[in-house]
Amino acid sequence: MRALRFDRQLKMIDDAPVPSVQGEALVRVRYAGICNTDLEITRGYGGFTGIPGHEFVGVVAQSDNPNLIGKRVVGEINAGCGRCAECQAGDSRHCPERSVLGIKNRDGAFAEFLSLPAGNLIEVPNSITDLQAVFAEPLAAALHVLDQVDISPSLQVAVIGDGKLAQLIVVALRQSGCRLTVVGKHQRKLDLASKSGAAVSKVSDAAFEHGGLPSNAGNERFDVVVDASGSPTGLEIALRLVRPMGILVLKSTHHDLATIDTSQIVVNEVHVIGSRCGRLAGAIELLSKGRVDLQPLVSRCLPISEWAAAFSEAASPGTLKIILDLSHRPS
Amino acid sequence: MRALRFDRQLKMIDDAPVPSVQGEALVRVRYAGICNTDLEITRGYGGFTGIPGHEFVGVVAQSDNPNLIGKRVVGEINAGCGRCAECQAGDSRHCPERSVLGIKNRDGAFAEFLSLPAGNLIEVPNSITDLQAVFAEPLAAALHVLDQVDISPSLQVAVIGDGKLAQLIVVALRQSGCRLTVVGKHQRKLDLASKSGAAVSKVSDAAFEHGGLPSNAGNERFDVVVDASGSPTGLEIALRLVRPMGILVLKSTHHDLATIDTSQIVVNEVHVIGSRCGRLAGAIELLSKGRVDLQPLVSRCLPISEWAAAFSEAASPGTLKIILDLSHRPS
Repeated sequence: MRALRFDRQLKMIDDAPVPSVQGEALVRVRYAGICNTDLEITRGYGGFTGIPGHEFVGVVAQSDNPNLIGKRVVGEINAGCGRCAECQAGDSRHCPERSVLGIKNRDGAFAEFLSLPAGNLIEVPNSITDLQAVFAEPLAAALHVLDQVDISPSLQVAVIGDGKLAQLIVVALRQSGCRLTVVGKHQRKLDLASKSGAAVSKVSDAAFEHGGLPSNAGNERFDVVVDASGSPTGLEIALRLVRPMGILVLKSTHHDLATIDTSQIVVNEVHVIGSRCGRLAGAIELLSKGRVDLQPLVSRCLPISEWAAAFSEAASPGTLKIILDLSHRPS
Repeated sequence: MRALRFDRQLKMIDDAPVPSVQGEALVRVRYAGICNTDLEITRGYGGFTGIPGHEFVGVVAQSDNPNLIGKRVVGEINAGCGRCAECQAGDSRHCPERSVLGIKNRDGAFAEFLSLPAGNLIEVPNSITDLQAVFAEPLAAALHVLDQVDISPSLQVAVIGDGKLAQLIVVALRQSGCRLTVVGKHQRKLDLASKSGAAVSKVSDAAFEHGGLPSNAGNERFDVVVDASGSPTGLEIALRLVRPMGILVLKSTHHDLATIDTSQIVVNEVHVIGSRCGRLAGAIELLSKGRVDLQPLVSRCLPISEWAAAFSEAASPGTLKIILDLSHRPS
């Protein structure tokens, strides 16, 4: 099968073996989104080697469960051992032996086919288009903030970053009715956040890179700050924006180390909460209501043959989501 | 009056004015402990200029409240504006306008006299000796971990560091009945932690400095890790020891920046909680029960005239608490 493979560099190969894992379901991928984590993987993040990609929608081609075959699905990306306490409690996200689709010890979605345990797959209702369904995984990650932090409508919340994950976090947090401010660098992206109902605060590249405060942020401090900047300086900025005893949610994974003044965390008794994957069922439920429109987040959809352009564009500052079309048959 | 003053360097002066703040109480200091924060202040931490020192026991010399005069007291070190929401709720620890004894905008305890609002003072029962009472402030800071984190007896807790604050945290956390492991570099200090009922894990200087795991820690991961290492590498070590979704309490303030892989916080969904000052009443209550003996934590008690030796010894790796005797009259 055709697939993108990363081993020190990203390459397209036409003769990747179709995955065949005993007891798992085989999914023919239709679309796969390029996430910032994928870009970080190509920079060395996590030391991953293999086929990246973890945001997808596809159709079940093979499964031990005949009812699944032909179903359009998205999938939970963490596959656990099934035996540890976490897995037994029905949550493999922190199984110490887990593999993670396209991130850790498991080939991912930038391929014609992927394999996942049948239990990881969630059927997509007809009311959700393919290009919305491909957002199920990152939308679930965004909604996960609401699982971790009790965000009441009275809270002042800031999101650092205006990229694709930040935009999904805005969509997710809007469900809580809280007052949202997005701190970012890109006017067009901030305009989009504005349309989603957030106040926006534009900062310069320099301010972002040196951890400065947004110039128009004044002395305002936020009850909750979510760092979705994708940058090691995001935490530094977030620490300046969060109020004493406030909550700082870290959503970005990146290859670079962050340099921070931990005394700010101590003196202001800030709670810093790491936040990774959410439950896809919640994302599918939200999308099925049709009240959120993620179409504006799609910058472009390109066939896998144009992977080099797709990755280059995904890494450029003005871009939101780039989606690879895997259903496009090789010519 | 005689006092130690820091302004780019620490010096003893004999003609410091006796503090006189309208409405506040004047306390004649008997003993004052040297804290790691004091050592950091002499390295530039917080940009403080003035008389450092915030751990003390003394006797009220002047007060608008005649009942206070002559009473032996310790004192809450945060003095708030009295008007903001935090102060109105009875907690000036996060008042944005606060001064902090010997740390921020307020001269401290390394002097014959200090001034604090009468409401900050707590009388010391006769059952507590001066040299135990001087630990009230850092012991309260240690006990504060129990205010912030629900530590049940079934939890596995690690304390990073074996210094004076770490030892007090061991004393405090032992109250919860949890299983404690102290990770440190100094055999004598680890022996002391052992006597307090903790398991100990010795690490080399190199492992500490490069954020390595204790060699005998194996794959063990802890539910809660408290960083009291006083070092920017403490957080890095703590991140390696805490279990996924575990809690990491930061207790150390230091002048240096920390370089960390924030992705570890995100991927393992760790909760990092900054922890500063506690309530002195709880510490005095614990000390009054006579069940904890802090005497072994006192390395030496020196008259203020020997301040240079005291600071030098306080900064040396083998030392625990150095206490300055302010009641010693100048000869």
